Amino acid sequence: MTPVIALHGGAGTILRHKMTPELEGEYHAALRACLQAGLDVLRANGSALDAVTASVMALEDDPLFNAGRGAVFTTDATHEMDAAVMEGASRRAGAISGICGPRHPVLAARAVMERTEHVLLSGEGARHFVKGAGLEMMPADWFGTEARRKALRAEMERRERGEADDGDPARKHGTVGAVALDAQGHLAAATSTGGMTAKMPGRVGDSPIIGAGTWADDETVAISATGHGEYFIRWAVGHEIDARMRWAGQDLQTAAGGVVEELGRIGGSGGLVAVDRLGNICLPFNSPGMYRAWCGRDGQIRTSIFAD
Amino acid sequence: MTPVIALHGGAGTILRHKMTPELEGEYHAALRACLQAGLDVLRANGSALDAVTASVMALEDDPLFNAGRGAVFTTDATHEMDAAVMEGASRRAGAISGICGPRHPVLAARAVMERTEHVLLSGEGARHFVKGAGLEMMPADWFGTEARRKALRAEMERRERGEADDGDPARKHGTVGAVALDAQGHLAAATSTGGMTAKMPGRVGDSPIIGAGTWADDETVAISATGHGEYFIRWAVGHEIDARMRWAGQDLQTAAGGVVEELGRIGGSGGLVAVDRLGNICLPFNSPGMYRAWCGRDGQIRTSIFAD
Repeated sequence: MTPVIALHGGAGTILRHKMTPELEGEYHAALRACLQAGLDVLRANGSALDAVTASVMALEDDPLFNAGRGAVFTTDATHEMDAAVMEGASRRAGAISGICGPRHPVLAARAVMERTEHVLLSGEGARHFVKGAGLEMMPADWFGTEARRKALRAEMERRERGEADDGDPARKHGTVGAVALDAQGHLAAATSTGGMTAKMPGRVGDSPIIGAGTWADDETVAISATGHGEYFIRWAVGHEIDARMRWAGQDLQTAAGGVVEELGRIGGSGGLVAVDRLGNICLPFNSPGMYRAWCGRDGQIRTSIFAD
Repeated sequence: MTPVIALHGGAGTILRHKMTPELEGEYHAALRACLQAGLDVLRANGSALDAVTASVMALEDDPLFNAGRGAVFTTDATHEMDAAVMEGASRRAGAISGICGPRHPVLAARAVMERTEHVLLSGEGARHFVKGAGLEMMPADWFGTEARRKALRAEMERRERGEADDGDPARKHGTVGAVALDAQGHLAAATSTGGMTAKMPGRVGDSPIIGAGTWADDETVAISATGHGEYFIRWAVGHEIDARMRWAGQDLQTAAGGVVEELGRIGGSGGLVAVDRLGNICLPFNSPGMYRAWCGRDGQIRTSIFAD
């Protein structure tokens, strides 16, 4: 089996008219480097789980993306990060919600999966768990960047002025994630996010919800989503794609593309990356763009930002 | 459309040999009264959402059941309650996790659905939200009962002695929930729980996870589950039953019974209550019993505890 991998850096792309050639170049280089991190694992015969973990760790470290370093701020000017991992072989899963501390929230999600009998830990209890888990910790101000602070100020000022949302999806859809198929035929998915700029503290989106923003089953598909999380939860997006393939016999493109199109019709903007058990890749989105990178069975790394 | 309603008081029933005739009578009377609360709403031409809310509120008030008053304790001897509601007409949903304060956690979940743009609030942010939501609040010691305190002590002592789990499902599966179909043909589901005795603080089970422990769609089915939550999340139980009906054309009994049987085979004990769009009721469980009550199209209220 030729291993394949795909990742996203969020469907909340900068509006095309605000993008500069320099910044666009930075994004493409970052996407390529983050994909390479996971691809290296796969090419050394590593597992899909280790590969998606490596790619998401790289995305978390890059302040261009809304996860780990570069996470957006809540209305309280704090960070509340969520992450999840899932293995297709056994449907083992781990997720964590509302934490700030571990340099790599995705490793905290893996620790929940590998070291507890639980799937999801949240809030104060989650923070207590990560402190004892031996993960690399960072002070709160390490995660914040000037760009994210500016975005919070702009959003709070917009609300004070009572102005309508400017429709800039970059405010809402920052998430990172990766899906992979390894040489042994196993699928895995990982997702990590700082949430929405100026979100209500305590709000949990779809990223750490198994079956919504994150899903993997070796018989069907691995999914990591990015978008308006509330819609992705109510449509159980990851599991719905699995169900259309499993029970309706749809192929990956029909199932994943169909769900994302349906979400678009009801106002649920965003997208996802998906890899099926045969190594097909599908990267549908209904927003103006989605930061993405992938390497399919032809072994070529590709990166893209807008709908081409 | 003749309205129908079904509820559960958890699959974590007392082992049959520990049950006394007096206690059994108390459970049957409580189940009947809680069902009647929802049925009264439906018969007054109320909505399915109001009916399941009324039944779950009654279950929360009864200390026999692990939700609201009578909620079990975490290892820290605190309460962390979770609840969710979902409407089938629009897939609107609200959920709350890790709170202690509102007398009726199900009303906190409804407030999330009706007064925020979010689906799930958790932990400190959730507690802050409920304080401002104008809900009836109770002091922490109102929720605890001597029986739950004893259960916590027994469990902590068992762990200290390093003894194996005694297999008593009453420790793990306390949850309450209701599903209904109203005269207008709308479905709704509600679930509420105190979680597992001696759970790790921060652990979130399937109850507040839309698509796992709680689900409703007017085209298919409303579900409220109770059981070993981690399995119910990994199998996306509520949404999986929807998918088997929608995409594989299965009837309610085949879909709901099949999923619960499959869970039993992999060690995921528990059960669920389900009502489909035609008013069929299905109450499958793979545990020794499940506290349950229902009123189908024949208008008769029935209650049951063990597999009969």
